[in-house]
Order: sequence, then structure tokens, then C-alpha cells
Amino acid sequence: MDKRTVYFLSDTTGVTAETLGHSLLVQFNDQSFRQVTLPFIDCEDKAREAVEKIKTARTKDDHRPIIFSTVVHEDLRAIIRTADGLHLDIFDAFLAPLGEELDSKPTYETGKAHGMSDIESYMKRIEATNFALANDDGGISRDYDKADVILVGVSRSGKTPTCLYLAMQYGVYAANFPLTDDEFESGTLPEILVKQKHKLYGLTIAPGRLRQIRKERRALGRYATAQQVRFEIRESEKIFRRYGIPYVDTTEFSIEEISSRILDSTGVERRVRA
Amino acid sequence: MDKRTVYFLSDTTGVTAETLGHSLLVQFNDQSFRQVTLPFIDCEDKAREAVEKIKTARTKDDHRPIIFSTVVHEDLRAIIRTADGLHLDIFDAFLAPLGEELDSKPTYETGKAHGMSDIESYMKRIEATNFALANDDGGISRDYDKADVILVGVSRSGKTPTCLYLAMQYGVYAANFPLTDDEFESGTLPEILVKQKHKLYGLTIAPGRLRQIRKERRALGRYATAQQVRFEIRESEKIFRRYGIPYVDTTEFSIEEISSRILDSTGVERRVRA
Repeated sequence: MDKRTVYFLSDTTGVTAETLGHSLLVQFNDQSFRQVTLPFIDCEDKAREAVEKIKTARTKDDHRPIIFSTVVHEDLRAIIRTADGLHLDIFDAFLAPLGEELDSKPTYETGKAHGMSDIESYMKRIEATNFALANDDGGISRDYDKADVILVGVSRSGKTPTCLYLAMQYGVYAANFPLTDDEFESGTLPEILVKQKHKLYGLTIAPGRLRQIRKERRALGRYATAQQVRFEIRESEKIFRRYGIPYVDTTEFSIEEISSRILDSTGVERRVRA
Repeated sequence: MDKRTVYFLSDTTGVTAETLGHSLLVQFNDQSFRQVTLPFIDCEDKAREAVEKIKTARTKDDHRPIIFSTVVHEDLRAIIRTADGLHLDIFDAFLAPLGEELDSKPTYETGKAHGMSDIESYMKRIEATNFALANDDGGISRDYDKADVILVGVSRSGKTPTCLYLAMQYGVYAANFPLTDDEFESGTLPEILVKQKHKLYGLTIAPGRLRQIRKERRALGRYATAQQVRFEIRESEKIFRRYGIPYVDTTEFSIEEISSRILDSTGVERRVRA
């Protein structure tokens, strides 16, 4: 199929342009795209270089490219606009009305906000990440007093990546505890968790999906059998209901969505805004 | 100071609205903002609830709010637009021109792309995260053959969070190895790393910043002294130069920027587009 080329142009990482672009592109699922990110366009030479790349690719494609751009300098934006394509630029669209509303002029400074708040936010995210790593999978340290939230669920239900995302994106202190035979046999949670019941949040997952994930990790043994997977999920959901632990089915959700749902449903406050 | 209220409205996580909003808001550094995210607005009731929240807050504020919105359903957007405020909506701005360019109609489906590609991308990110965790800080497993990139640097230079971000955002297999007295005394890298020289990427950091970070972790002992920190950084940079290892100074950069610079400079291909 004939693929459109999509460019993400940025004066910093390209993450904003990519995030914006993906939100829009998924709305057109009859199309197929070749995606290219050109980050760190922070001088005229690099802007001209990007335009050249786009022009060269253009001669090979049947259609003109889509260009998502988050370059703040007007001079650089003017250069970029000389490339043939559909330009979708957040600064073109939103900077003028926002400045008018705020009765303020943009600084046109490239990239991030400056000063101490950045370092503070960096440190908070690092500390939260270290917390997640130290309190992963019921490990020894178990500093649950400090936790904002403690995720519980069976092996491979998404606890670790969700904790790491909560830490890195929101600075939230997220621990996790795996439910295993100890809990399934007794039908109870260990005392250390019961004491923190208000912080617990459960993850569950469809059996078919869990098998698929577990097979990737360890194909042999009972770990990924249909019977074992169904047993563990049923027992873990029983435990959630017994203790009144809110839980989410992660089957259809990305890590970002699971994390956002946990914040939304628990009311846990983020410690940083990324 | 009088704070503006900024709302991030979304039918999914709010991450896109927040990312977009922050890129724009940092351009106005004479302003101060109170930020509120209202995610998962996926039905008319929730849209009306959001409008009510905005109206209530409006009666307390001197200024009308700024509303960044990424709600795709036109009916819901119409409800949201009844809230008094400056509306900056990526679908209002970009969906029509994009559809025209592609000669296609948006699906108006909420949230992510569907189907197997999602599961594949989820699994790839999880596997990359597990790889980063297993190959963190020179740990035992050291599966460097599988690594896309191996970060080297002194303790607290940002290796672990960068590896995790590379895994979760891009699906890249990133290992890391801490430079310690063993390397500083001999001035050489262990053979296991030399064999993978083409994969090595160095992180360095300003001594003052490193002291600040280390003090948070362990204030006592020589770990965070000015002398020790300067020594380690000097020796690690010597090693980078001796082996011709490219490196980046992380002092002024966020984890996102460090990660993006590593991809840009090494040419390592991302395995997923988040």
C-alpha cells in the first residue's frame, strides 16, 4: 500500500510533535504511514537540513508529506514552511491566541522551562523511580509507609511497568506486590498489606492475554497454562472483592491509560507535572 | 500572584493535552498557572460534569480559564465549548485539514489504535523494560549481546532512568554499566564492555549538580564530597575519550531529552512508536 510520509519536527525531543501527531493519525485507520522524527532543530542550518530531507523524500513519494512541527522560533518556522507538505504546527495555531488571552509575549526560548523547578522535578521523578525499583514485586525493602499507591495482582498483570510509569511521568510513589500461591491458598493478604488497605489497587487481565504474555516469558511448565492462568485470575479477583480493593482490567489498556485511570480513580495527587 | 486556571480535557489519559499545553505554557514565564486534568471524558454526562467544574472554578477566578482539549467526538466537543474560557483544541484545529489532505474521514473512535499492533507494541515495551531492569547497574545477567545501547557513567549520572525511559517510550534495549574505582584505577573498561564498544554511550554531569543529587541519596561519607565527585567525573570523561565513546552532559537535560539525544546521535532505531 502507498504510504504517506509523516515528519515530526521539533527544536527539542520531538515527543510533543509525536504525541500530537499520533492522536490525529490514529483517526485515519484506512491509511498507512512512514514516520520520521527530526529532533533538535535549533538553528537555521538544521532547519534547512530538515527541509532538504523532506524535499528529497518528496521526489520518491506519490503524495506530499504531513509535517507535524513544534519549533518555537519564528525564523526557523519560516524556513520549515518552505518544505512542500501539509504543515500542522501547534505554535502557528495556538501561540497567538494564548498570548492575547494572557496579555503576555512568548519568550521564544527553546524547550523546557528553566530554573530550580526543573531540577526539583527531575529529582522527584528520580526518587519516585528509585522507590518503584526498591519496592518492586514484594521485594525486601517494602517501604509501604511512604507509598502513594500499592499495586497488587498476579505475575505479568502489568504491575512493574505501571509503577515505573507512575514514577517517571507523575513522580508518584508506587510499590507493587505480586499475588502468589501464598495468597491464593489462604485467600488472605499479608498483614503488611492489610495495614495499608486504603493504598491498595488491583490489576486484573483477561486469561487469554495473560497466557500470551506469560508464554513469551516462559513457555514451559504450568506458569502459562490455561488452567493456571484462569485459577490465578479468579482467586486474585476474589481477594480484591473480599477486601474491597478497587481494580482495573488492563487487557485493553496501554500503560499510560492504566496509570491515568489509577490516578483518576484513587485521587492520588501527582508530585510533578512532566 | 494571581494564577490562571488551566484545564487539560481528554477522552483518554490527558497525556496529549498536557504535553501540548506545557509546550505552550512554558513560553509565558511571567505567568503562573493552576493546572487541572480531567481525563476519560467519554460520554455526554462526563462532558457536562467537566463543564460544571469549570463554571464553578470560574466564579472564584479573576480570569477565564485556558482549556486544552483532546476530545475527539464532535458531540462532546460541542458540550465542552459551552464552558467559558479560551479553548485550544487539536481536533478543532487539525482534524479537518488532515482529513482533506488524506482524502479520508476520521473514525472518531476514542483513544488508541486498535488490534494486534497494540498488543505487539505493549509486549515490546514490556520486554525492553524487563531488559533494562535485568541489565541495570552492571548486574549479573549482562545480556549485552541483545542490547541496542549500553550507557556508561558514574553513579547518579542518570543511567537507570534514561534506560527505563528508552525502554518504555521507544522499546529500545538499553543496558547500563556504572563506572567505579575499578575502572578509574586502571583507566580501562572491562573486556565485556570493550567487546561492545560500538554500543557504548557515556553520560557525564556537572560536579555541582552531581553533588546535589548524591547528597539527597547519601549525605555522609566521601560519596557526595566535592573532591570525590570531581575525581570521578574527570576520570570517566578520560575513559570516554580514550575509547572514543560519544557522551552527553546531562546537567541541563530532562530524561526525555537525554533519551532523544542518544537515539539521534547513535542512530539506534526505536522498536515502537508510542
